[in-house]
Amino acid sequence: MIKAEKFSDEISKAEVLIEALPYIKKFAGSIAVIKFGGNAMKDPQIKSMIAKDIVLMKYVGLNPVIVHGGGPDINKMLASLNIETKFVNGLRVTDEKVMEIVEMVLVGKVNKEITSLINKIGGKAVGLSGKDANLLLAEKDLSQGDLGYVGKLINVNKEVILNLTEKDYIPVIAPCAIGKDWKTYNVNADIAAGKIASSLKADKFVLLTDVEGILKNKEDEESVISRLSYREAKDLLNSEFITGGMIPKLKCCIQALEGGVKRAHIIDGRIPHALLLEIYTDKGVGTMIAKEVYDNDNL
Amino acid sequence: MIKAEKFSDEISKAEVLIEALPYIKKFAGSIAVIKFGGNAMKDPQIKSMIAKDIVLMKYVGLNPVIVHGGGPDINKMLASLNIETKFVNGLRVTDEKVMEIVEMVLVGKVNKEITSLINKIGGKAVGLSGKDANLLLAEKDLSQGDLGYVGKLINVNKEVILNLTEKDYIPVIAPCAIGKDWKTYNVNADIAAGKIASSLKADKFVLLTDVEGILKNKEDEESVISRLSYREAKDLLNSEFITGGMIPKLKCCIQALEGGVKRAHIIDGRIPHALLLEIYTDKGVGTMIAKEVYDNDNL
Amino acid sequence: MIKAEKFSDEISKAEVLIEALPYIKKFAGSIAVIKFGGNAMKDPQIKSMIAKDIVLMKYVGLNPVIVHGGGPDINKMLASLNIETKFVNGLRVTDEKVMEIVEMVLVGKVNKEITSLINKIGGKAVGLSGKDANLLLAEKDLSQGDLGYVGKLINVNKEVILNLTEKDYIPVIAPCAIGKDWKTYNVNADIAAGKIASSLKADKFVLLTDVEGILKNKEDEESVISRLSYREAKDLLNSEFITGGMIPKLKCCIQALEGGVKRAHIIDGRIPHALLLEIYTDKGVGTMIAKEVYDNDNL
Amino acid sequence: MIKAEKFSDEISKAEVLIEALPYIKKFAGSIAVIKFGGNAMKDPQIKSMIAKDIVLMKYVGLNPVIVHGGGPDINKMLASLNIETKFVNGLRVTDEKVMEIVEMVLVGKVNKEITSLINKIGGKAVGLSGKDANLLLAEKDLSQGDLGYVGKLINVNKEVILNLTEKDYIPVIAPCAIGKDWKTYNVNADIAAGKIASSLKADKFVLLTDVEGILKNKEDEESVISRLSYREAKDLLNSEFITGGMIPKLKCCIQALEGGVKRAHIIDGRIPHALLLEIYTDKGVGTMIAKEVYDNDNL
Amino acid sequence: MIKAEKFSDEISKAEVLIEALPYIKKFAGSIAVIKFGGNAMKDPQIKSMIAKDIVLMKYVGLNPVIVHGGGPDINKMLASLNIETKFVNGLRVTDEKVMEIVEMVLVGKVNKEITSLINKIGGKAVGLSGKDANLLLAEKDLSQGDLGYVGKLINVNKEVILNLTEKDYIPVIAPCAIGKDWKTYNVNADIAAGKIASSLKADKFVLLTDVEGILKNKEDEESVISRLSYREAKDLLNSEFITGGMIPKLKCCIQALEGGVKRAHIIDGRIPHALLLEIYTDKGVGTMIAKEVYDNDNL
Amino acid sequence: MIKAEKFSDEISKAEVLIEALPYIKKFAGSIAVIKFGGNAMKDPQIKSMIAKDIVLMKYVGLNPVIVHGGGPDINKMLASLNIETKFVNGLRVTDEKVMEIVEMVLVGKVNKEITSLINKIGGKAVGLSGKDANLLLAEKDLSQGDLGYVGKLINVNKEVILNLTEKDYIPVIAPCAIGKDWKTYNVNADIAAGKIASSLKADKFVLLTDVEGILKNKEDEESVISRLSYREAKDLLNSEFITGGMIPKLKCCIQALEGGVKRAHIIDGRIPHALLLEIYTDKGVGTMIAKEVYDNDNL
Repeated sequence: MIKAEKFSDEISKAEVLIEALPYIKKFAGSIAVIKFGGNAMKDPQIKSMIAKDIVLMKYVGLNPVIVHGGGPDINKMLASLNIETKFVNGLRVTDEKVMEIVEMVLVGKVNKEITSLINKIGGKAVGLSGKDANLLLAEKDLSQGDLGYVGKLINVNKEVILNLTEKDYIPVIAPCAIGKDWKTYNVNADIAAGKIASSLKADKFVLLTDVEGILKNKEDEESVISRLSYREAKDLLNSEFITGGMIPKLKCCIQALEGGVKRAHIIDGRIPHALLLEIYTDKGVGTMIAKEVYDNDNL
Repeated sequence: MIKAEKFSDEISKAEVLIEALPYIKKFAGSIAVIKFGGNAMKDPQIKSMIAKDIVLMKYVGLNPVIVHGGGPDINKMLASLNIETKFVNGLRVTDEKVMEIVEMVLVGKVNKEITSLINKIGGKAVGLSGKDANLLLAEKDLSQGDLGYVGKLINVNKEVILNLTEKDYIPVIAPCAIGKDWKTYNVNADIAAGKIASSLKADKFVLLTDVEGILKNKEDEESVISRLSYREAKDLLNSEFITGGMIPKLKCCIQALEGGVKRAHIIDGRIPHALLLEIYTDKGVGTMIAKEVYDNDNL
Repeated sequence: MIKAEKFSDEISKAEVLIEALPYIKKFAGSIAVIKFGGNAMKDPQIKSMIAKDIVLMKYVGLNPVIVHGGGPDINKMLASLNIETKFVNGLRVTDEKVMEIVEMVLVGKVNKEITSLINKIGGKAVGLSGKDANLLLAEKDLSQGDLGYVGKLINVNKEVILNLTEKDYIPVIAPCAIGKDWKTYNVNADIAAGKIASSLKADKFVLLTDVEGILKNKEDEESVISRLSYREAKDLLNSEFITGGMIPKLKCCIQALEGGVKRAHIIDGRIPHALLLEIYTDKGVGTMIAKEVYDNDNL
Repeated sequence: MIKAEKFSDEISKAEVLIEALPYIKKFAGSIAVIKFGGNAMKDPQIKSMIAKDIVLMKYVGLNPVIVHGGGPDINKMLASLNIETKFVNGLRVTDEKVMEIVEMVLVGKVNKEITSLINKIGGKAVGLSGKDANLLLAEKDLSQGDLGYVGKLINVNKEVILNLTEKDYIPVIAPCAIGKDWKTYNVNADIAAGKIASSLKADKFVLLTDVEGILKNKEDEESVISRLSYREAKDLLNSEFITGGMIPKLKCCIQALEGGVKRAHIIDGRIPHALLLEIYTDKGVGTMIAKEVYDNDNL
Repeated sequence: MIKAEKFSDEISKAEVLIEALPYIKKFAGSIAVIKFGGNAMKDPQIKSMIAKDIVLMKYVGLNPVIVHGGGPDINKMLASLNIETKFVNGLRVTDEKVMEIVEMVLVGKVNKEITSLINKIGGKAVGLSGKDANLLLAEKDLSQGDLGYVGKLINVNKEVILNLTEKDYIPVIAPCAIGKDWKTYNVNADIAAGKIASSLKADKFVLLTDVEGILKNKEDEESVISRLSYREAKDLLNSEFITGGMIPKLKCCIQALEGGVKRAHIIDGRIPHALLLEIYTDKGVGTMIAKEVYDNDNL
Repeated sequence: MIKAEKFSDEISKAEVLIEALPYIKKFAGSIAVIKFGGNAMKDPQIKSMIAKDIVLMKYVGLNPVIVHGGGPDINKMLASLNIETKFVNGLRVTDEKVMEIVEMVLVGKVNKEITSLINKIGGKAVGLSGKDANLLLAEKDLSQGDLGYVGKLINVNKEVILNLTEKDYIPVIAPCAIGKDWKTYNVNADIAAGKIASSLKADKFVLLTDVEGILKNKEDEESVISRLSYREAKDLLNSEFITGGMIPKLKCCIQALEGGVKRAHIIDGRIPHALLLEIYTDKGVGTMIAKEVYDNDNL
């Protein structure tokens, strides 16, 4: 080996590629369902990075399936139309008029933006609504009373997803479901993503959030719990330690594992290239939950 | 053969099925691109019939590909948002704000309605925007001056359509295109349908309109010209006989034939089951244009 | 929707096609084994109708497999050759000479007529004898004493049938079997059809007869029993209600159900388009026997 | 190598297998169309040998397609029925009644015998008539005047043959053709075999006859001409040297070569295992005609 | 059938081919693993015969997989290099230097000779070492103490063998294995062949040796035991009857049967065409061991 | 986007992966033939790096085909055996004895080392000699007089390479060829690699050397010419500027381009990760020769 100082920068880069090799091998041919939403979607730079991460994953052999939300855009459009909505236990009361706007924004705006972003990077993304090929089937969710077209997901018809991934498309899914009454229902994007991951027996289910992960000490952002076993995660959920928005996220991960997913991740989408960091480097970001956790488990 | 009077109704029905057999055989395995729009989309009963016709076509072996417009819904939404638009030579001046609304309505509302309608009948429809897998590629149309995001279609990436039809899905396409500048462009639905038909070398290209077809005598709705050869159609276009909205439709049909489509049809979507009548009975509705026209040409 | 009086006839026809859609969907991709014989084969008009029904079935996705008999033609040929035969319990005593004539007529005449009839309508029929690829394997039937080459079917090699149907051919099968002693055996066409249906786990097994079906009151041709559950059919068979030629037919249907067939039908082939009526309209003809019978069971 | 006298017989046998290896390699994957007929079919021992040869060919990778005649059986049946027929230039005047008998005997007797014979040896033979899947299409042959249903072959639909051979079936074809008028026609078996060979671009077309081949000296059965180039064959045909039944056979071979067949053979079916001798040993039997003939051409 | 005296030789040959037909049918599509070694490899004439036998097997549908040894060549090369080796219980003490020579000779000389020999006859042989695609995985064999790189086979990765055979290649395998420590290990060729046969669930496992088989009476070379049941073979092994080099061979055969192989053979490679004799004639050579042995068991 | 200082290292790594994305996309599904030899093979650290680079290439979709030399090992073995060889114009006079050693070392030692090295990293390498499946066909090279078994490559049978790459194996090829006289020939590894690349119409042909590339100024190692057009390369070859060992390498590249290869590279194998640097970063190492060279041509 010679000294190759003028290439030292490039050599360092090559070494990074080589470092990623064990992870690339490990995940070649598997599926990762990624929930892309919340504030991560507000920052154009972050969105663009995530799109790049997704395309890279596809090219190195890990098949990404994207599920997105879209709260902020929905609120904006409802405001423009002077439609007031009220919330019950964090769920929007959704009448027919509101549902129409929700669907238009999710399917006709947010979904298309993400699809285009990925295609611009060189992926082949195809947007899907839960109504396409009856992908997501729902019924009215009456757990909080009748909130209108708020749906409870009862089935995932995964066939169209698999047909697309096997032809190397990247499916991008908006969480509008078709009801058994052939009406449109709004379903929670995290839950939809988890159920899609379960139906696909995905290797990875990733919730891209805008928090650091699950914290040991809520005052200390540095106290992220890196790994949780399924058992620990269930105990944590039943304790009173976990509060607020983290409860449904943790529940969602636990259900995904129960549905056959290998590993669930709650990661901080605000960190540049959080997806790649989690999947292709030794140092995971956020919290990983798996049935069994070992020391060298990231690999 | 016995007299079977108590079955006489059913026997008549069976005879109708048998009558359709030569047409079913003829079109088995071929592709029909159907532009579904205008006022045909306003009447729920008509929409439901068309959906049934489309599903039947699929089950008897003719692969339908649907392209739709959505003018009335767009206007309604723009009005609700108090956005005024102006038209130049019938083309809407489309700034970024308007384009966003156009896309939301076409992709997130009209497309989803049609998709669901077909699925409800038992088809497997999947909605697509021209941005999915870069299906429709456009550049700014400057022929009438700079009207903003009014696009001229420059390429159709048919691969995603074929991947879906071969898996027995029915693609439903909203005519929003992706620009070479990665912006969204609005393209004319008739032209998009014609170009899609050309790229697929479709056997049939059907424009579902709300007129009777091309009339010999504009005062007389009964004077529909049933068949035109390509040559006659070109002569007609160059004459001053054809006027108004029929000009772009006729042009569109002629271009589809030039692009490799076998037959183009302008039919009256207001007639119940117009699609089936045109394809599976001896008596066509509206005007058919083909390279070569013979006496028994409907079969 | 507009009034379209001049198209009213065609519209009615289209409505008939649409009415058939639920049935077309239901049976798409399934197999129907049809025993075609008896007097239905004497009337050229009926034969032609049945051929059309069969081709239509194929084109709308239900794969027909035809089994035929040929008694009358056999008798005629034996008479021309001045060969007398006697019958024991309805079974023809079949020596080598008779067997040769039986085979020639079934395979070289009746089978070819049906094959050609279907091909003339536009199907792709291929005639098979039970000797082709050892399709039907028999041994001497000694249940009524030694009647010569009267065979008891002991195996169906369905592979050649499946190879043909998957390439869209319509197999037409003559019930001559190959013996374990490499002699030719005559087997009962109804039984052969039933066993073929069982081996294929067919969705439908149809006996085209020249009676109305099973009657509640033998004096009253109008008293056809439309539906029987498997249990009811077995009870009926064990009662003394059923007599004569209906006994083996009913037995045959029951065995087909036991062999895995979903529904067995005894229908009146003399009714025009009886096959289509039974399969594609709400009003079945004749008697249907199924494991489970519900109200809307025809669909 | 040791002396292995007690195995000397077996070793000699193994050497024979090894001797066949170059021929087995050469013809692996190719098609041989074999006309099986005439007196070769009268001798049960010869028939059984030919069946064995055919099954062996299939197992060592050369796909046989069999075409047969059946004159003697036809005559016998016509005689039994007291039907007199007359011949014009060696062609039987064939009215509808005669045609029916011809078809019954060819398709229902001769074809089935050959099929069974092959299956008994362990092949998977499937009998075909020219009416199956419209395999042989004919029109009335008026070259010798109107002789009724004597047909001139105008098309071979080889698809069904190829579908069967690729699934390892051995097609056995009876030379009854379907007319453009949907009547049945009798076609010459040699010509049918030649045209089938042409349509398949067969490597070998073999006429199994009951003569030694083409003789140099008609008085001397030992004077068989082993090889003829296409040019020599044409010259011979135009000379007056060839007479009688050999003329159509030679013509048939020449046309097969013109149709794309590599080599045509006229061989003596009375010689035990003539087929294997011709194909798998150095010493051909009968006459071979090829576009180009070289010294080591049998290999 | 005519007398065909001038063809009598060829006819006898054809009869030999026909005699082989039942065996060819029986083994079509199956796998035979053949250990080729010992003195059989010293005699060029024998080697050439075996290569011919192997190619013939391939062409008539039995897929051969070859495993070879190479003791004599290894010894010669070690001698040329003045490397002395010692043996413990018949196993060569193998240090790194020796292992390198062993591998070079087995993979770079013996394997290539066999591969070329087969290709020259017209097969498509591809040589493999146990290191290719990690085909043979070993660990240090400590059963006789530490003898260096003497390996115990712990896994066979059969995938590469199957990928090659399905493309009609003949794999030729040198018994060098890759260790779990990524060092090279020498493994016993007989054992490697047996384990490969087990992993492939081969129909036949053939040890080509230079003895007559297992003898009833060691003094009498004529007293070969033709057939042994699995039980008899185990009893024999546990008795003191079997001695010397036959012990590991018999053990190897028993293990192959336990691993799923149908029949194991110990045959005398010095007999010309021993392989063909064993597989394609009634008279086996050497000893066959099978789970169940019946009278007509060779067929 | 948040500051994520504690992840800054990982983020930089992710950015490197993203930087490689355009190159990964560009070469997905293509073939690179890599000549691996000379001094690059002496340094274990370099060898290991190259193996990693090769496995990474495979995982990110570029199919590597490796060709190697082995001069130093050959010389060492010849010396151990006290075999003296002489060279004529840089070509080794190769008698049968020498050829045997050359083959043993190349196929049984060097090839196996490289194969194992790749497998250890996680690739699936399969070693091939030019004798396997007659991959490399040669005749005696008489251009410098009769030097014995020095071969001129006359054909590449690429089928076995393609069969292996499509199953995701990495072929590693030793440049021993089979002669038309069935003797073994030694062929130049660079030329073999170039011809293999031509036969595969490879996207890339890479000569890993131990020089910096082609220098503008031979005294100045910094003066590497980065890009040459085909025309410039030919001119350079015909000039007297290029001397010594670079002449055959340049010639080899030119012939590869003429044979259909898109780009040929002469790169410095001593630079760590030279392969990855050349293929996946903006800064190529060494000299690239292409039919057409543009500014952004590395991408």
